[in-house]
Amino acid sequence: MVKKVLKFGGTSVGTVERIQHIAHIIKKEQLSGNKIIAVVSAMAGKTNELINLSNEISDEFNKRELDVLLSSGEQITCALLSGALLKLKIKAQSWMNWQIPILTEGEHANARIVNMNTEKINQFLDDKGVAIIPGFQGISNKGDITTIGRGGSDATAVAVAKIFNADTCEIYTDVDGVFSTDPNKIPVAKKIEKISFDEMLELSSLGAKVMQSSAVQTAMMYDIPLEVRSTFTERKGTKIFSQENIDYTKSVTGVAYSKDDAKITVIGVEDKPGVAANIFEPLSKAQINVDMVIQNISSDQKTTDITFTVKRDDILKTKKILKNESKINYKQIIQNEKVAKVSIVGAGMVSTPGVTYRMFRALSDEGINILAISTSEIKLSVIIDEDKTLAAIKKLHTIFDLD
Amino acid sequence: MVKKVLKFGGTSVGTVERIQHIAHIIKKEQLSGNKIIAVVSAMAGKTNELINLSNEISDEFNKRELDVLLSSGEQITCALLSGALLKLKIKAQSWMNWQIPILTEGEHANARIVNMNTEKINQFLDDKGVAIIPGFQGISNKGDITTIGRGGSDATAVAVAKIFNADTCEIYTDVDGVFSTDPNKIPVAKKIEKISFDEMLELSSLGAKVMQSSAVQTAMMYDIPLEVRSTFTERKGTKIFSQENIDYTKSVTGVAYSKDDAKITVIGVEDKPGVAANIFEPLSKAQINVDMVIQNISSDQKTTDITFTVKRDDILKTKKILKNESKINYKQIIQNEKVAKVSIVGAGMVSTPGVTYRMFRALSDEGINILAISTSEIKLSVIIDEDKTLAAIKKLHTIFDLD
Repeated sequence: MVKKVLKFGGTSVGTVERIQHIAHIIKKEQLSGNKIIAVVSAMAGKTNELINLSNEISDEFNKRELDVLLSSGEQITCALLSGALLKLKIKAQSWMNWQIPILTEGEHANARIVNMNTEKINQFLDDKGVAIIPGFQGISNKGDITTIGRGGSDATAVAVAKIFNADTCEIYTDVDGVFSTDPNKIPVAKKIEKISFDEMLELSSLGAKVMQSSAVQTAMMYDIPLEVRSTFTERKGTKIFSQENIDYTKSVTGVAYSKDDAKITVIGVEDKPGVAANIFEPLSKAQINVDMVIQNISSDQKTTDITFTVKRDDILKTKKILKNESKINYKQIIQNEKVAKVSIVGAGMVSTPGVTYRMFRALSDEGINILAISTSEIKLSVIIDEDKTLAAIKKLHTIFDLD
Repeated sequence: MVKKVLKFGGTSVGTVERIQHIAHIIKKEQLSGNKIIAVVSAMAGKTNELINLSNEISDEFNKRELDVLLSSGEQITCALLSGALLKLKIKAQSWMNWQIPILTEGEHANARIVNMNTEKINQFLDDKGVAIIPGFQGISNKGDITTIGRGGSDATAVAVAKIFNADTCEIYTDVDGVFSTDPNKIPVAKKIEKISFDEMLELSSLGAKVMQSSAVQTAMMYDIPLEVRSTFTERKGTKIFSQENIDYTKSVTGVAYSKDDAKITVIGVEDKPGVAANIFEPLSKAQINVDMVIQNISSDQKTTDITFTVKRDDILKTKKILKNESKINYKQIIQNEKVAKVSIVGAGMVSTPGVTYRMFRALSDEGINILAISTSEIKLSVIIDEDKTLAAIKKLHTIFDLD
């Protein structure tokens, strides 16, 4: 008997019809003899609706009360799904965060699940019942309602899978799985059948927004196999598991891109210890997320240039901070607001020579100028002009045999 | 220092602006040195919206899960009100049904509050905090979410007032108080300043839908003074308390009416013990609410006529039952579907001779025929033709000095 955690995101439970539809999915899984714990999000749009109400009252709405407010969204879905299963004559019951309880640590709006009581729910599963659990929330050791920051309901699903010792964790969503690149942009994009946790992390941090990165990290840490699949088709999804279980036939698994980047170069900063820290510390304090950082070797041994990328929305704030920070001396700031980051990701890259060279040559063949380069074990990213993004993705997708 | 329970109904918290408005009401009360516990309903329309969702899934939606679903409505109001108070720099905190906890007994959708833990909330009140509590809900001894049947949030407010030993319980609503008759029909209707629990019960059961009867009953049982007042004006409301504290200057306090009544007369039933029971037992089992019952002395000592009123919607069902019930023998059934009940209510009636006579004379002066009469200690009801309702109310309102 297989114990499964099935997680259904906001669009999968967005209407009563969809809730009835996933009740049928769960029924099928349960009648196949599996033990099912379903983790559900709030109905699509619900959380934003509640956030808007709170914003009408205050743009600094009290965090404790915001968690009380937002947690009602998943409560509604739990009750409706439970009712839909009972209507199908499937034994089912909802459990609220405090009824389990789902114990969390950390601040309001940014808590982490640390434990759950498994006894009552395991008993219910043994009695052939389907347990319905709200994602995205828990309670603190003081008994306050908390919500989980990064990862949301995905993180709850993975935590449930870990704590209940589930065999697998299936993430039902509105896409068929993880693709070799954005299928909306590149029609020949292919669904990836199997992918390692590391690759998935690189892809999702690079803009493939199928699953929350922190949930993938947790799954990797505890080696919980994941599957991302569509709520709306019967197609197989993408299996995500540890690298050693994957047989790589290709060096590159996918091509990712992110838009809305901007590149800033600080020219002529002193080439001495602590300079980079002086630049990035105030940016970090101002909640500006710095992505790629490249520092060239200085030509005159005294000064150097530091290039980095930030989100386009942050560019004015970033320049203001650099100008007002007395510890930073530089000659000039150059910015380019119309850049994109294109990356190839693949755990097979390490063992395949020439991937880097092939990428650069391919882009050069297309007349695409590389503005900056950054590499990691399983990823190679370049910054290019934004209007060349599509051409770059297409070319890379083809030359690495992903079409 | 006065401890007050303030209850805000659905229309009083129907929008963010209204929630901000009641935050100001609470702030004023709190700055006057009162200890405040606020009991809130779901935002107007919210509960119906949730019920509609459940009906889309099943018209026999599981009762346990329905309570999980519906209780989310008050949770949202609690969080928003708490946030609105904190924005006004008033210390405030929401408490959920399970955090207090509000312990209930009885079935889902029809539970009764039996106890609450007062320690933490009293401590919070001592520390000058405003406690926000959801109406209409609690938890069972098994730890399931329950909702309260009759009385809803009014019943919660009265229970909170009782258990926390509050000095007063104020019901904020969308009318100015309890009126001598329906102000929408009779412009000279006057707000009643003081009224006894008994009179309030007679008025509310007669169609003055200002407060739920079961909540008034509980308040009467524990002698908790109530005040019904408007959320939207600064006017004084209606105080409701025990009869001995009211100095009656008028014999009649108010004129009530109910529409949608129908009168049925069963002619020629045997005049022997058990006949009335034989008629009303099957009606009761069929959930038909019988209101007035009049049995005349029989002229021939062998048969009699029994007249009673039911809601107009129930008339077909009622006739069907009477026809199919083999224990009932009668000559004929007469029905009148277009009747209304008009009542005068007043604790002063007992000690004022001639009230009955004055009522009958007044109606006769207007040419209104009385079809049936029923009396109690503090109430005198007549059934008349429906199209004479307004004329009757106007006349009675005038002759009993209520204009």
